[in-house]
Amino acid sequence: MTVASKMSEEVKMESLSLGPMCAAGAAVPQSGGEPLCVFGTGDLGRSLGQRLLQCGYSVVYGSRRPDSCGPIPLGAQALSHADAALSASLIFICVHRDHYGFLQNMAPHLEGKVLIDLSNNLKKGMFPDANAEYLQRLVPGAAVVKGLNTLSAWALQNGLLAGKQAFLCGDSAEAKQAVSQVCTRLGLSVLDKGSLSASRELEDFPLQLFPQWRLPLSIALGLTAFFYFHLLIRDVIYAYVENGKDISYRIMISLANKVFPIVSLVMLSLCYLPGVIAAFIQLYRGTKYRRFPDWLDRWMLCRKQIGLLALGFAFLHAIYTFIIPIRYAVRHKLISRVVDEVRNNKTTPFYFDNTEAWGTDSFYVLGILGFFLYVLLGLTSLPSVGATLSWREFNFIQSKLGHITLFICTAHGYIYGWNKFLKRSTYKWYTPPGYMLCLIVPSIVLVLKVILLLPCVDRTLTRIRQGWERASSRDQTEPFKANNV
Amino acid sequence: MTVASKMSEEVKMESLSLGPMCAAGAAVPQSGGEPLCVFGTGDLGRSLGQRLLQCGYSVVYGSRRPDSCGPIPLGAQALSHADAALSASLIFICVHRDHYGFLQNMAPHLEGKVLIDLSNNLKKGMFPDANAEYLQRLVPGAAVVKGLNTLSAWALQNGLLAGKQAFLCGDSAEAKQAVSQVCTRLGLSVLDKGSLSASRELEDFPLQLFPQWRLPLSIALGLTAFFYFHLLIRDVIYAYVENGKDISYRIMISLANKVFPIVSLVMLSLCYLPGVIAAFIQLYRGTKYRRFPDWLDRWMLCRKQIGLLALGFAFLHAIYTFIIPIRYAVRHKLISRVVDEVRNNKTTPFYFDNTEAWGTDSFYVLGILGFFLYVLLGLTSLPSVGATLSWREFNFIQSKLGHITLFICTAHGYIYGWNKFLKRSTYKWYTPPGYMLCLIVPSIVLVLKVILLLPCVDRTLTRIRQGWERASSRDQTEPFKANNV
Amino acid sequence: MTVASKMSEEVKMESLSLGPMCAAGAAVPQSGGEPLCVFGTGDLGRSLGQRLLQCGYSVVYGSRRPDSCGPIPLGAQALSHADAALSASLIFICVHRDHYGFLQNMAPHLEGKVLIDLSNNLKKGMFPDANAEYLQRLVPGAAVVKGLNTLSAWALQNGLLAGKQAFLCGDSAEAKQAVSQVCTRLGLSVLDKGSLSASRELEDFPLQLFPQWRLPLSIALGLTAFFYFHLLIRDVIYAYVENGKDISYRIMISLANKVFPIVSLVMLSLCYLPGVIAAFIQLYRGTKYRRFPDWLDRWMLCRKQIGLLALGFAFLHAIYTFIIPIRYAVRHKLISRVVDEVRNNKTTPFYFDNTEAWGTDSFYVLGILGFFLYVLLGLTSLPSVGATLSWREFNFIQSKLGHITLFICTAHGYIYGWNKFLKRSTYKWYTPPGYMLCLIVPSIVLVLKVILLLPCVDRTLTRIRQGWERASSRDQTEPFKANNV
Repeated sequence: MTVASKMSEEVKMESLSLGPMCAAGAAVPQSGGEPLCVFGTGDLGRSLGQRLLQCGYSVVYGSRRPDSCGPIPLGAQALSHADAALSASLIFICVHRDHYGFLQNMAPHLEGKVLIDLSNNLKKGMFPDANAEYLQRLVPGAAVVKGLNTLSAWALQNGLLAGKQAFLCGDSAEAKQAVSQVCTRLGLSVLDKGSLSASRELEDFPLQLFPQWRLPLSIALGLTAFFYFHLLIRDVIYAYVENGKDISYRIMISLANKVFPIVSLVMLSLCYLPGVIAAFIQLYRGTKYRRFPDWLDRWMLCRKQIGLLALGFAFLHAIYTFIIPIRYAVRHKLISRVVDEVRNNKTTPFYFDNTEAWGTDSFYVLGILGFFLYVLLGLTSLPSVGATLSWREFNFIQSKLGHITLFICTAHGYIYGWNKFLKRSTYKWYTPPGYMLCLIVPSIVLVLKVILLLPCVDRTLTRIRQGWERASSRDQTEPFKANNV
Repeated sequence: MTVASKMSEEVKMESLSLGPMCAAGAAVPQSGGEPLCVFGTGDLGRSLGQRLLQCGYSVVYGSRRPDSCGPIPLGAQALSHADAALSASLIFICVHRDHYGFLQNMAPHLEGKVLIDLSNNLKKGMFPDANAEYLQRLVPGAAVVKGLNTLSAWALQNGLLAGKQAFLCGDSAEAKQAVSQVCTRLGLSVLDKGSLSASRELEDFPLQLFPQWRLPLSIALGLTAFFYFHLLIRDVIYAYVENGKDISYRIMISLANKVFPIVSLVMLSLCYLPGVIAAFIQLYRGTKYRRFPDWLDRWMLCRKQIGLLALGFAFLHAIYTFIIPIRYAVRHKLISRVVDEVRNNKTTPFYFDNTEAWGTDSFYVLGILGFFLYVLLGLTSLPSVGATLSWREFNFIQSKLGHITLFICTAHGYIYGWNKFLKRSTYKWYTPPGYMLCLIVPSIVLVLKVILLLPCVDRTLTRIRQGWERASSRDQTEPFKANNV
Repeated sequence: MTVASKMSEEVKMESLSLGPMCAAGAAVPQSGGEPLCVFGTGDLGRSLGQRLLQCGYSVVYGSRRPDSCGPIPLGAQALSHADAALSASLIFICVHRDHYGFLQNMAPHLEGKVLIDLSNNLKKGMFPDANAEYLQRLVPGAAVVKGLNTLSAWALQNGLLAGKQAFLCGDSAEAKQAVSQVCTRLGLSVLDKGSLSASRELEDFPLQLFPQWRLPLSIALGLTAFFYFHLLIRDVIYAYVENGKDISYRIMISLANKVFPIVSLVMLSLCYLPGVIAAFIQLYRGTKYRRFPDWLDRWMLCRKQIGLLALGFAFLHAIYTFIIPIRYAVRHKLISRVVDEVRNNKTTPFYFDNTEAWGTDSFYVLGILGFFLYVLLGLTSLPSVGATLSWREFNFIQSKLGHITLFICTAHGYIYGWNKFLKRSTYKWYTPPGYMLCLIVPSIVLVLKVILLLPCVDRTLTRIRQGWERASSRDQTEPFKANNV
């Protein structure tokens, strides 16, 4: 009878005799809990051990020099690797991949054990295979489980695990079972990612850097660059070439405060465009059971990020607007205008234009309301706020309120240009101004959305989304589909 | 054998059979996990199945046409309904209520099974009885459990379940037990809502639309409408009738920027009024063991919503204030004033009023500090922030800081009208201005609060809240009450 | 025997022997769940009982007068203390410490029971020993577990427990095990704090009032006071003494709007200074395995709070800036200037200074961008947002973005004083102005950070942080350290 089989019997007996939370044991009397082994006394090893002790396990460290391995948590024991391995059936490997060599040497001692590989790399693709797969090759007799590598020593030490998700993968179901029991007791919620071949994915997880933000950020940067140069040419360079005036100081604030709202509005409409396109595809196909094209899927998955970027630009636009009156150039213009007014000695009283007052005030009001709704949308996209909403509430806010926001912001844009559409001076060098260009996409989205809200269209779409299929959409009619939720 | 030792044996026996996480089974060898059955291969069925597979269960789909039922998750099996039902003891029903008919036909196959009804309706009150009760009538031999219907397919697919609550109800305790085991493993925290008669409530849950916001929103809208018309009459119509001046453009911003702070202040005081009233009721009754009147209970339950609406109005007030100087009307007035100053050729230097400077600056400072505290209160009411606070910290912020905010905002209001109280021109058409009306409720709340803070009153109240009762408050003296926390 | 009946037998057997979740019992037939006892029918007792009932337990209240003990939750039973104690092995003590006397009298009935002490005190240090230790002394035959005292009756009633942490401590491992099983079922994540001697710490927990905010708040207040008086002397008093001008109205806004950005910038740099110091200490020592000095540890632990205070000051600075143009003094100055301009009858056109326009605009732009990044940093420090970030993402935002924010805000400060450094009038009474003083610490942090980013330094530091040690750093070379994560 090998150690491994003995161990696996122990595991069974253990789970036999020991309920999930009551991992107490007659077997290991010292600190009363089920014994677990940790290889490695670095930051992560120490924090993990301490946390395991707090959750009622007894912890044995495996170290090359058990007597001088540095500080270990109170209540834990430090033994040689081999002795430590003997004392427990689960071994947490908190060691860098570079030093896995010694595990190969002691493979016989690890026969039948469950090895949990917690290692991470510094960069993606440093090694040809995943650390956990490498470990499994080194110690074929053990059951390697990859997991817990997404936890930081810091989170472990401070007990910030409640409700966090731990990903596991491994080839042995029993081994994963045993590990997930420990995870549950640490307060983690476990998600099985399948066989050990998924360990590469798990190891790349802590190294990822905003993968979902890449596409939205590229779009935002592209739009910003395009509109910035467009405005630079139309405003600054045009003024210099045609009138010989140097208004280059406008680059800093005036131009930015035109580009930001433009990009914000376009991004907001890009956030609602894929939903509208998807609805039209479903209407055209007459079924919801066919996958959307890949580009649409990808687009729909980053709508939240697009929306948040739009909010960021709107926020900048708001602040840029608030500081307008304290700018030097603006105050200078105001003073010049008054001085002018006085110098020219006009005898008619300074004329108050009621239409102008109404126009600008409406413009500001729409902007403020739009910004307010924008912020509201942003707040409900906070994870903890979103979690408190029912499905219908979330839908109401993100769809209804979202389209209303888009409508208000588009109206804000239209009012800005309401009396400039027909003037020739608007089309400098025969180019349309930025605020016209940026209204195209939002207008299209709003028109399409209105079409979708027409009773007849809406009814068909609702039926399709409940599972109904137009007869012509498939050769073989399968109406029973409709009964699935 | 004492009771204690018996108990500890029970605990051990409990854990003997089947650890909590290790619901593995020798019975179903294929994918290693306990088999579960899902009826319906729609979005929800597919997502649920995939998630169950990830958590280590093996999943069998029941379908009318197992061979052509569309895509099912990798690792799952599709069988006929009858065969699928045979393979598992728990069956998730992911089918629309309209199609429950087939379940009646196969009732013999479902004898003794646990059926989990996940269905939702499109509207409240579409059917006379709850879906789950209808299902139980169709299949009397099965144990129907209503639950998990609050989860969306989207949340299931993306593993966003950690820490979410799942509500269950059903008439069989064992069935609920079995389902709650599965839920726990999905990372959900389970709440038993009692017998199957509660299923109507559970089915209405995902359909609810901000039920707690109804009353606060009605109050806010009512106040807004009242003060808007009040100001419209006093400002715009009065100016037109008495002076023949058309200042209708003020409706957009000037009026709104008076209404918003007024409503915000009244809402904020309404947020703290019920607490004060409750304290006086307890003082009058001399006990905390009698229920408050229903209206007060309902009021106290929506204080958070009232406060958040007040914050929303304060936010709008702040932005409306920031854009004042860029408004056309304001700039026009400024220029006119300067031109006037110059034209009249005053020889005295333009007079600087130190009192005015102090007054307006204090007014702004109080407003800014009030808004700052407002935002702080709003931030701590975010679920994830509130969860990190100890009880005393939460209390400190929501009560102490809240009353200080109310005090500062009320002072902000008083300073606004400090030199206008005695002028006759303030009372146009013999009506008091809005900023006076809005100070009534906050002043009352603050005065009552100060009374409650008097040492003698405070001491009595603290004792009552610790469980002490005034002898006269009950016929039968029950001093032992006081020992309960 | 059909499959169904077999299954239902299985389910029954399962629940007979009691799985972890299925604490059902043949022993207590009335409501089907494992019986638990609650002493005390106050708010907490009632809420706890109701919640336990919802989770499937059966609840028995112990009361002195079971017939007139006031409202208890539906489904619970009220018995005398002795009878209630007999019916369950776990007893929740929801009674004030002052009334523990009766427990001593019934100690024989409590022999072998698990007593969970939920009591809290009103103040720290009211009693010489912890409540739980006192209880253990009164009833030596029972196993006292301290815990759950951090839960409020309110959270219990509203089911707001999911994902919250419950701390437990006690001398008996089995007793803690039994209690932690109940906690898990309530949706709580359990953290064992060790023996009963930790109960004082647990009892102080709900009484703590922002302990981590004390140091940062003291620093902020100290800095604010210092710079306020510094500016008061240099601006207001200097003007009065030297020029006889009373500009005391500036105290309210102008001075505050200088102090806030100064304090904000210093606090932000204090937030990044300890990290830089720690890196230099590690470089000097050549190892990461020696503890930092205590003052540095404490400083590093409150960096988040320092940063949030800095954000608060920046927020105030932003709002103070937005309302500048509507201030009386500012408008007065503007008008005076125009009137002056006109009176003096200058014939040259009012001169537009391009450098000035560029300078002030850059100043504002840097301020806005800095504030934007500030807010971003603040948002990611929200617990629910931070939880969604991978380690690398969190690091990217808090370190890279943080230093960029510091750089931009420091540049904002430098531009403010760019043309004033060399003027003599800047150094009133031979003191340097506040905006120069506040640039010292940020500049030092940035210079040190740049040194750390030099390739050669960075490489060494990275190796040290991966566990490498310089040979000279220890007498006994222990290279194997390096293999720990």
